Amino acid sequence: MANCLVAQSGGPTTVINASLAGVVKANQLNPVYETVYGGLNGIEGILEGRLYDLTNMSELENRILKQTPSSALGSCRYKLKRDDDTDYRRLVDIMDQFDIEVLFYIGGNDSMDTVDALSQWAKKNGIAKRFVGIPKTVDNDLMVTDHCPGFASAAKFVNAVVTSTWLDYNVYTRAEVFILETMGRDAGWLAGSSVISDKVDLLVLPEEDFDQDNFLKQVKNCMDTKGKCYIVVSEGAHFADGSYLAAADAKNDGFGHAVLGGAGNALKNMILDAGIAPRAKVQDLSTAQRCANYLQSYVDVEEAFKLGMSGHMRSADGEFTGQVVGVVRKEGAEYDVDYIAGPASEFANHVKNIPAEWILPDYKGLTKEAYEYFTPLIQGEPDLIMENGVPAYVKPYHMR
Amino acid sequence: MANCLVAQSGGPTTVINASLAGVVKANQLNPVYETVYGGLNGIEGILEGRLYDLTNMSELENRILKQTPSSALGSCRYKLKRDDDTDYRRLVDIMDQFDIEVLFYIGGNDSMDTVDALSQWAKKNGIAKRFVGIPKTVDNDLMVTDHCPGFASAAKFVNAVVTSTWLDYNVYTRAEVFILETMGRDAGWLAGSSVISDKVDLLVLPEEDFDQDNFLKQVKNCMDTKGKCYIVVSEGAHFADGSYLAAADAKNDGFGHAVLGGAGNALKNMILDAGIAPRAKVQDLSTAQRCANYLQSYVDVEEAFKLGMSGHMRSADGEFTGQVVGVVRKEGAEYDVDYIAGPASEFANHVKNIPAEWILPDYKGLTKEAYEYFTPLIQGEPDLIMENGVPAYVKPYHMR
Repeated sequence: MANCLVAQSGGPTTVINASLAGVVKANQLNPVYETVYGGLNGIEGILEGRLYDLTNMSELENRILKQTPSSALGSCRYKLKRDDDTDYRRLVDIMDQFDIEVLFYIGGNDSMDTVDALSQWAKKNGIAKRFVGIPKTVDNDLMVTDHCPGFASAAKFVNAVVTSTWLDYNVYTRAEVFILETMGRDAGWLAGSSVISDKVDLLVLPEEDFDQDNFLKQVKNCMDTKGKCYIVVSEGAHFADGSYLAAADAKNDGFGHAVLGGAGNALKNMILDAGIAPRAKVQDLSTAQRCANYLQSYVDVEEAFKLGMSGHMRSADGEFTGQVVGVVRKEGAEYDVDYIAGPASEFANHVKNIPAEWILPDYKGLTKEAYEYFTPLIQGEPDLIMENGVPAYVKPYHMR
Repeated sequence: MANCLVAQSGGPTTVINASLAGVVKANQLNPVYETVYGGLNGIEGILEGRLYDLTNMSELENRILKQTPSSALGSCRYKLKRDDDTDYRRLVDIMDQFDIEVLFYIGGNDSMDTVDALSQWAKKNGIAKRFVGIPKTVDNDLMVTDHCPGFASAAKFVNAVVTSTWLDYNVYTRAEVFILETMGRDAGWLAGSSVISDKVDLLVLPEEDFDQDNFLKQVKNCMDTKGKCYIVVSEGAHFADGSYLAAADAKNDGFGHAVLGGAGNALKNMILDAGIAPRAKVQDLSTAQRCANYLQSYVDVEEAFKLGMSGHMRSADGEFTGQVVGVVRKEGAEYDVDYIAGPASEFANHVKNIPAEWILPDYKGLTKEAYEYFTPLIQGEPDLIMENGVPAYVKPYHMR
């Protein structure tokens, strides 16, 4: 019997470990693989042979792993080169060394691209290794799947922070603007999800070029009408020339992506400079939004876990490779999903944006289709195991 | 039978409404007052005669009020003048108009000072009005009481964010500094509470003058040892000359207090400029930390509610005025408190700091006495009523 390997990559989420827990649990229910190895720090650690045996994880550890935020196996930003197969061969050597037939790779856009590249290369070279993708990303920007594990919990946290800070900024009668900045480099799903709180006056998304004059006009209208204005902005908001509102802070993460942050402050400065409001506060959710294990969405945790199981279960078919698992929403009033799988090439390297027809003009938010899309995703809370006043977590495997 | 009035002032907290719910519920258990009025937007609204009848609030509304963050009656930053009794006389006129004998004032340092001033003035002028203080402040800096309602929930949130972001920043092997900024203008209790997470490498408090050279030396030691450094800083951290680390952003809130924010960024810039770490991330908890109703401390909510009840119950004694209720920790291994009351003058206008003997040298955190102090406060979570994926809340009375 061969073994399997599971690894995590890219920016972590609140439920990326639930998918890991799902792979491990599926193998306990049906031991298709003799050993389930965890690859530490993604491809980077695997190439160094750093593996951790997860096969016999206890039920309690599996349960706590589901509520542990961030990547318990560690992550990496290392991208396998497509034009030079040195890394691919090293990876296969490691897999041979540990008798590993299948790699489950839990990650976002780049990782799904890696799954596609590896499986194509293996097929072309007659190498009997298989590669399966399990999606995650708080950005929710993968194609094919209705939504991405990790997104819904982040959206739940965004909605909770919007609601509670909206209550806070309304205690005073003074004129004030509140600006909440969320993650979302190329797609505005996370910022957009805030509309279901019914607290957001203006929404600034990366799906549209930012028009400073019209935006300031809308802020002024809002201040004139109610003396307050609650704004949500995505970190990736940009001007028509493509430059980010947060451009002054832009750096590079080594993948050619700008490291953003500061769109909220940019809006604050515009509003104060224009004299539209005497006071503006910025709340940048930063890292906290992708690891808020104290407010996971039940729907999200369960789907992430089941996608891990689904990936494992489908891999029992020896032809299953270069595929990514996902969910498709069923028709009907009650929220439910079908678990599906499709070619990694179709999931990766395209950014799924909020449909243009959902976006209301003048930064006024989103249509009711968006409410119907987002609302079911943030429902329910898992019954957390607490320790010393905060959610219990599994000690990261790469730190043991 | 006379009536009573309850109002909220200053910056809101996650449990300031639990104290309000306690006053209302106590009067339902023993109707000492015919009507319980809520004063809208603190003293400011009361002087305008804006009152709301809370007497017959339903049990469900009372329960949801306990989990509603921010001040459901609204707040104000208006401070009654001590050297001119025009405002005092207007207040008494309003109280006469509504046949109000007692004012319960839920607030922080400034509000407890107001309770003291009003009760002294009333006594001196033979006016049969009484004034009772119920403490709240995330800063935890009031004297006499062991701790202040609102602090423990904020501390629980701080610990949850520290734990989850620590897990997040550890996924990569790269050298990195993470800096979490908390509230705490003059006292470092909230930043200090983070030590019980056992994740904090360096702690920067307002209780000590900031020594940049020694701080950078400690960051360097930490980076040399483990390649990572997790720092928590209080917004009120300052240099020996009294200037805030965040001085560049300092403004004024009208009370003569500096409006802070930016200590984290100041540390980040120092560290990057000194070339000690190639990368540093700042998470400023900002408004979210004082209204995180999705992670209230059970101990905090219950004590806040009971302090509201205690204030009401003690006020049945016609001599009870100029007093503030509080808690004193009982001796013994099991956490428990005695509910006490004392003169407002003793609670107000002094800042209670973290004891100097609890503070370890070289930004290394706090002694075990601090662990024993903080740990019981953040235990337990109330059973929240959720609505549309986030905690249900009572629509603010000043917005109805």
